[in-house]
Amino acid sequence: MSKERLYLFDTTLRDGQQTQGVQFSLEDKYEIAQALDDLGIDYIEGGWPGANPTDSEFFDKAPEMRNATFLAFGMTKRAGRSAANDEVLAGVVNAGTPAVCLVGKSHDFHVTTALGVTLDENVAAIADSLSHLVGLGREAMYDAEHFFDGYKANPEYALACLHAALEAGARWVVLCDTNGGTLPAEIYAITKAVIDSGVPGDRLGIHTHNDTGNAVAGSLAAIDAGARQVQGTLNGLGERCGNANLITLIPTLLLKEPYASRFETGISRDGLARLTRVSRMMDDVLNRVPFRSAPYVGASAFAHKAGLHASAMLKDPSTYEHIDPALVGNARIIPMSNQAGQSNLRKRLADAGIEVAKGDPALGRILDLVKARESAGYSYDTAQASFEILARRELGQLPSFFRIDRYRVVVERRKNRLGETISLSEAVVVLWIGDEKRLSVSESLDPSGSDRGPVNALSRALAKDLGPLQPYIEDMKLVDFKVRITNGGTEAVTRVIIDSEDSAGRRWSTVGVSANIVDASFEALLEAVQWKLLRDGAPAA
Amino acid sequence: MSKERLYLFDTTLRDGQQTQGVQFSLEDKYEIAQALDDLGIDYIEGGWPGANPTDSEFFDKAPEMRNATFLAFGMTKRAGRSAANDEVLAGVVNAGTPAVCLVGKSHDFHVTTALGVTLDENVAAIADSLSHLVGLGREAMYDAEHFFDGYKANPEYALACLHAALEAGARWVVLCDTNGGTLPAEIYAITKAVIDSGVPGDRLGIHTHNDTGNAVAGSLAAIDAGARQVQGTLNGLGERCGNANLITLIPTLLLKEPYASRFETGISRDGLARLTRVSRMMDDVLNRVPFRSAPYVGASAFAHKAGLHASAMLKDPSTYEHIDPALVGNARIIPMSNQAGQSNLRKRLADAGIEVAKGDPALGRILDLVKARESAGYSYDTAQASFEILARRELGQLPSFFRIDRYRVVVERRKNRLGETISLSEAVVVLWIGDEKRLSVSESLDPSGSDRGPVNALSRALAKDLGPLQPYIEDMKLVDFKVRITNGGTEAVTRVIIDSEDSAGRRWSTVGVSANIVDASFEALLEAVQWKLLRDGAPAA
Repeated sequence: MSKERLYLFDTTLRDGQQTQGVQFSLEDKYEIAQALDDLGIDYIEGGWPGANPTDSEFFDKAPEMRNATFLAFGMTKRAGRSAANDEVLAGVVNAGTPAVCLVGKSHDFHVTTALGVTLDENVAAIADSLSHLVGLGREAMYDAEHFFDGYKANPEYALACLHAALEAGARWVVLCDTNGGTLPAEIYAITKAVIDSGVPGDRLGIHTHNDTGNAVAGSLAAIDAGARQVQGTLNGLGERCGNANLITLIPTLLLKEPYASRFETGISRDGLARLTRVSRMMDDVLNRVPFRSAPYVGASAFAHKAGLHASAMLKDPSTYEHIDPALVGNARIIPMSNQAGQSNLRKRLADAGIEVAKGDPALGRILDLVKARESAGYSYDTAQASFEILARRELGQLPSFFRIDRYRVVVERRKNRLGETISLSEAVVVLWIGDEKRLSVSESLDPSGSDRGPVNALSRALAKDLGPLQPYIEDMKLVDFKVRITNGGTEAVTRVIIDSEDSAGRRWSTVGVSANIVDASFEALLEAVQWKLLRDGAPAA
Repeated sequence: MSKERLYLFDTTLRDGQQTQGVQFSLEDKYEIAQALDDLGIDYIEGGWPGANPTDSEFFDKAPEMRNATFLAFGMTKRAGRSAANDEVLAGVVNAGTPAVCLVGKSHDFHVTTALGVTLDENVAAIADSLSHLVGLGREAMYDAEHFFDGYKANPEYALACLHAALEAGARWVVLCDTNGGTLPAEIYAITKAVIDSGVPGDRLGIHTHNDTGNAVAGSLAAIDAGARQVQGTLNGLGERCGNANLITLIPTLLLKEPYASRFETGISRDGLARLTRVSRMMDDVLNRVPFRSAPYVGASAFAHKAGLHASAMLKDPSTYEHIDPALVGNARIIPMSNQAGQSNLRKRLADAGIEVAKGDPALGRILDLVKARESAGYSYDTAQASFEILARRELGQLPSFFRIDRYRVVVERRKNRLGETISLSEAVVVLWIGDEKRLSVSESLDPSGSDRGPVNALSRALAKDLGPLQPYIEDMKLVDFKVRITNGGTEAVTRVIIDSEDSAGRRWSTVGVSANIVDASFEALLEAVQWKLLRDGAPAA
């Protein structure tokens, strides 16, 4: 049986750009457009030509699309002139994109108060604007702003706006829940009423916002009712609480019933398997820490903590996983924690390449150690590499690469020769490799002369000269640093988690705990280096 | 017309504790339970007595509830013994809570493979366990694990499990979508079928997970179908992608139709207006950066960025806001609206005893400064004392008590005379009071000889000898210290918040920001001392 075609429309570069604190550079826009096209998205909205210099420049040299249709966004013609003579609309048309989406009013109240025109004049403006686009050979879409509120206030008028656009030749009309307040059940009912009024489902799109946490569900409800184009953004970017998250919608539509059997999209299985990477790319562009619990692609999305769950997982992964994580390019994690049992522990050790026989008394000792250290503030379910080091030490499988003799960090704020106040840190690390003593010193200034602080200086000094071990750690870098005070008040203990990365793309986390934040950091840094040496088979001293 | 009662069930302390990286301390558990009770939640699940030392200790001294019913979680009796003779179940019962929720199987496949008992034996175990609780006078709930998958595999059997629990006297049976894979439309249909089978809606609960981004929508679907208890967690904490977010569900149920007219809950309008604060409290406990785009309570949830939107907002807020943000304790942000900003600012200054005339140009300068510094990582909402110092400096109302010349902190780890590894910090602060130079030095060891770290040493050195100012700061002490990395990655900036207290019981918070954590701490310490001198009228030098 042939499947129905469902179209995916991305507005990361237009609506996603409305996210508070987000300002895409030109390079960002090219990178995102490229990733969307590679993924297999049908429509990519690039922005509003003329709205700001970056958008204008982006359309002047539009990205080349392999699969997707590139769109410009604008608004229907203003009152008192024809579509052909509206210079704002002309700016959008002149961007020369194969498709154009125009937003217009469909709520009677907004037409009369915000636009200050009659209801009929607005319908005529929609028709004139859309047929102008069609006359120029463009694929035209009408984005019906405030559609759901408009429909509730005056259904006949809201529908009249849609039909005017369709009769003018619009390929699609899109129902936009502009303020994000419409709940899924209502989206279903109204979308159904729209189709019953004669709007074909394969010319109908849905555009939701996440103000009630239901943007994804609202999109699905519209698809259930018959809409065949769905709009959203990468990672749910967008004004206020964001738009529908395409990264969440795509696997649901491709992998879950009733959608998987019913629809085909432009996204292949290979594209789907790159989804986690596309989501990370978006975070990288924004320099954001990825949201761990994001559906499908989050680092925790397939992490199983409860002891009860972890042992069932080992028997049958489908018990606690609704899909296979590999399908979206993600991976299963069975972390350590005080909830975990021995079966969980053995699985975790096996993942790290450590085989321990069932019933080995070392398992009990490791579990007790993990529990004791977690109650002292350590957190091994985030710091897998530290867990591995702890286990290997307990099992007598941790080679001694080097021994720390001492370290010293000096942090100071003082006036420099120019009389400016500066802060600066300097770290000395003294260690032994076999019977050879090595002293390294580093300071905390980056190439621009900014102070990066004591942990940075210490990290550099530690990794500066490990003699014969140096080639093994040359490509490793510190990529994230998290601090948490685990007990409030003066008896506070500081937990530091350090994420490291190497040129092979491996990423690992280590933990340190101390009342002294510098010492906690040093512990985590040390284990990060140890793990890298261990993993790459560096020689013991 | 009287409203139907809808019950809210919080499982932050049990299922929320399954969040990767989350480990509640005993103090955390009391603080969260208190906040939930104050909010008006009906049921608060405290954990699983016996599962780990913290949970056991928590139940040994259970928090006192003003409104809520406190619950322990456990599982139905194991095979081969009676409910009365199951020591795991006894551990749960012995916690002595007024209500108990027991998880049990309802999916035929899991019964035979995971439990290894017959289908009838499992039904009998459910009945025996629940009637055991009822016999002891407890309010009993049955949590049907994997219910939706179980129903799809064998509807008769899944329903038989529910009915066995009800007939045994369970107050509630709860449909649990354990692996989070059931979509809202299916949750609606199956919940409806459950009610059609004779389970009364007012004895039926729903427990969803967010693996497809639909936990909130799935909960609403079950309520639409007739369920009258809804389970979730604060900020959607929970294993993998989390549970249904109560912070999102509550305002939808209280403010939006069809729910607002139809239901009453235990949450008052006052409780609802504290919702944003409750969400922040949860983030504070976990030392997490609040999620800006969280529905209803996020800092961006009512932020209007688009020029088009912002000007429409000024005409009529309902255009782009589906609810009034004040109802949930949140606030509107309109970047261009300086007017609203200035009146807020005057109110805040007046709170600090600083009167500034309306229209004073200093107001605009202070607003700009706060904005610039907040985008650099400062947070003046939490650090009111630092805000006051910033405003007074800009208004020329900040006396100069002393001037810092320089400081230096040395942190070291080395062997002591006994060959033990120790860590130690030493701080030197040099400052001027008038034309008198003062050098102070302190170390980080507490009376027991434990290292309290560099910030502790610095704090002691700064407060050690302020000459004529010393009597003013003698009674002040550092009571809390919070660290947050405000930008992930290597370009991370550290924000330090320090809470101080004096013998008059005053408590104040100051903030410092720097890539250098010691320098950020020094800035916050310095402002803590300045505020105390200011407040107690110390003489300027």
